[in-house]
Amino acid sequence: MATRAQEVPGPAVARFAGLSLDSGGLAPLDVAYETYGTLNAAGDNAILVCHALTGSAHAGNHYDAAGNPLGPDGWWHPLIGPGRALDTRRFFVVCSNFLGSCYGTSGPTSINAATGQPYGPDFPPITIRDMVRAQRLLIEHLGIKQLVCIAGGSLGGFQVLEWAAMYPEMVAAIAPIATSLSHSAWCVGLNEIAREAIRLDPAFHQGRYPPGEQPRRGLGLARQVAMVSYRSAPSFQARFGRFLAPGAARPHPLEPRTRDNQSVPFGRDYEVARYLAYQGAKLVDRFDANTYITITEAMDRHDVATGRGSAAAAFRPYAGAVLCMGINSDILYTVEEQLEILEVFAGLGNPVHYSEIDSPHGHDAFLMEWQQLDAALRPFINDAWDLCRAGQTDQTAG
Amino acid sequence: MATRAQEVPGPAVARFAGLSLDSGGLAPLDVAYETYGTLNAAGDNAILVCHALTGSAHAGNHYDAAGNPLGPDGWWHPLIGPGRALDTRRFFVVCSNFLGSCYGTSGPTSINAATGQPYGPDFPPITIRDMVRAQRLLIEHLGIKQLVCIAGGSLGGFQVLEWAAMYPEMVAAIAPIATSLSHSAWCVGLNEIAREAIRLDPAFHQGRYPPGEQPRRGLGLARQVAMVSYRSAPSFQARFGRFLAPGAARPHPLEPRTRDNQSVPFGRDYEVARYLAYQGAKLVDRFDANTYITITEAMDRHDVATGRGSAAAAFRPYAGAVLCMGINSDILYTVEEQLEILEVFAGLGNPVHYSEIDSPHGHDAFLMEWQQLDAALRPFINDAWDLCRAGQTDQTAG
Repeated sequence: MATRAQEVPGPAVARFAGLSLDSGGLAPLDVAYETYGTLNAAGDNAILVCHALTGSAHAGNHYDAAGNPLGPDGWWHPLIGPGRALDTRRFFVVCSNFLGSCYGTSGPTSINAATGQPYGPDFPPITIRDMVRAQRLLIEHLGIKQLVCIAGGSLGGFQVLEWAAMYPEMVAAIAPIATSLSHSAWCVGLNEIAREAIRLDPAFHQGRYPPGEQPRRGLGLARQVAMVSYRSAPSFQARFGRFLAPGAARPHPLEPRTRDNQSVPFGRDYEVARYLAYQGAKLVDRFDANTYITITEAMDRHDVATGRGSAAAAFRPYAGAVLCMGINSDILYTVEEQLEILEVFAGLGNPVHYSEIDSPHGHDAFLMEWQQLDAALRPFINDAWDLCRAGQTDQTAG
Repeated sequence: MATRAQEVPGPAVARFAGLSLDSGGLAPLDVAYETYGTLNAAGDNAILVCHALTGSAHAGNHYDAAGNPLGPDGWWHPLIGPGRALDTRRFFVVCSNFLGSCYGTSGPTSINAATGQPYGPDFPPITIRDMVRAQRLLIEHLGIKQLVCIAGGSLGGFQVLEWAAMYPEMVAAIAPIATSLSHSAWCVGLNEIAREAIRLDPAFHQGRYPPGEQPRRGLGLARQVAMVSYRSAPSFQARFGRFLAPGAARPHPLEPRTRDNQSVPFGRDYEVARYLAYQGAKLVDRFDANTYITITEAMDRHDVATGRGSAAAAFRPYAGAVLCMGINSDILYTVEEQLEILEVFAGLGNPVHYSEIDSPHGHDAFLMEWQQLDAALRPFINDAWDLCRAGQTDQTAG
């Protein structure tokens, strides 16, 4: 009898001889990935999904013969599967853990072949373009000739845009969501604060902490800083209000009450504070401080114009369709930044679409507002697929 | 010949026997304050200005006989002076350093009479209401019978609202700016993150750091967290863009450039990061970590409804006018929260006015947009004064 662990497919890992980076190189290179659906014989029905900062290759769910999901939910699972927007009856959906992460692809927690020890802080500095180069190796390895669509939000959107700039001939359509052409000063500032929180933790030791002894409080605080930027003030207010957490101590007449009204305590133990601390601790259990630094630095370097003159020049060779999606309550990657992306592609003559998610949840809405995401992505992807097949017919006819 | 130090008036300090707090008490109590203009014989031409988190009593400038300002600019100086919105030819403007701060009023850096040492972390927990009680003592000490207006933004607005709730008979008009009826979950979360940054610094020692050896990095990081919430993404983008700071090291082809284009370095030393670090260090030089904790905890307790049933019940005895001001780019104290304040007073039948500051600068606009502040405050204060004098005439006639 198969064990539960065997029933749940984990990510596969493809090993490559190495990768040339914007600065230096890496050898060997591992790329972890998951796939959903089946690649057709022509290798032209693939969709690539790009994950965000602390995400992994586990975007969709895998299902048993009866249609029941196996294992924990993937981060975009309502959009991936039979009959869903990324319809696995039709498409071969791929998600790979990006370069520098800690979920199977080479990153700071990987073994440095030169030393036999984890890279730690010696992992080379990387860029979004390096991430896309690694993904490109995987896509070729899988026999994929064409990507019907590349979709992703936030840092996932950075990769989507770099794909259009770097490998335009392989891509029929892109859907960058709640992202930006270049990382804004405000976002860089937030990342710098998060990294300073990690460095401030005495357990950081300049990144040379032993495995299992990482700077928990510092990484947890970094996550808390990010969490407040992922949501908006109204979203926090609706969820937590001014309640104290159950069992909070230090009675004081002007302290708010717990939800069950059992005590009127005095202290700092608000529900929102406990939530943030919990979110911080949860990330610490599944993530790595050096990895957080490596990736956020790569985010800060993101600017599609760098070395290409302008964003328009970067995208000029790309002829495919573009669906930009913004979130009206997003304070991190603003609606204005989505419209900037749209304008660049519109100016180049690409078919462009814009869809704005109406949500109180801030940036995180791209991981929450399934109906609105489905409503925008489904027709966009199907149209892209129809155009791809029309193109094939033309070629055959020709 | 007088020295420069003597030419520049510093804050005066009034000592009181003690203060009864919402929780416990304090003895003695010092209250530091500055005044601008002259109190009239009736003691009824005073305006109280309330400062924000890291502010002081130095709201306005003092001028020599030729009209030249003495010393550094006060934090609201364009609004205070002869012919300005808070016209010192007509009004007696008072600003006091609030309870718990470190600019002359009793707080964690003050000497605890019981030990002969600074209170440090043993300073009692306080509330906005305690701050207002201390201000009330000062107002009586100065011989003020009536406040024509009380104005303040942010935490200053908390005090403004508590004045209307606690001492309604003394107040003719209030101008709460970019503030809230109760501290929101998002703001509490940000404050908790700031406090965790202080606690994370090994130099914090549970608040028992020696004088002059406070947790500089932790307090600096706390300030950086606050700074990003005081501004908006567009404001940071306009000011810093993606430039690296001059002299930043570690060349890398995908790193952005410095403004003077002299180098294309690789590193984390963005202009925005250096700005935030500078702002953090600047606060550390003039502020105290235990004070930051004491005051932000008081902010988190702010809720005018606590112990009074509702905000409407809290304000019912107050009959004066209300000018609410919001800032359209403020993500910390939202426009919606200003409209909540407005609605409560409108529902009670108070004369209400609303003015929205149009600014890209976020919350800090209440310390920047002088023309718009002047345009709203000047007529509001003059109307309040006219009504006060009409009331005097009525009383004389009666």
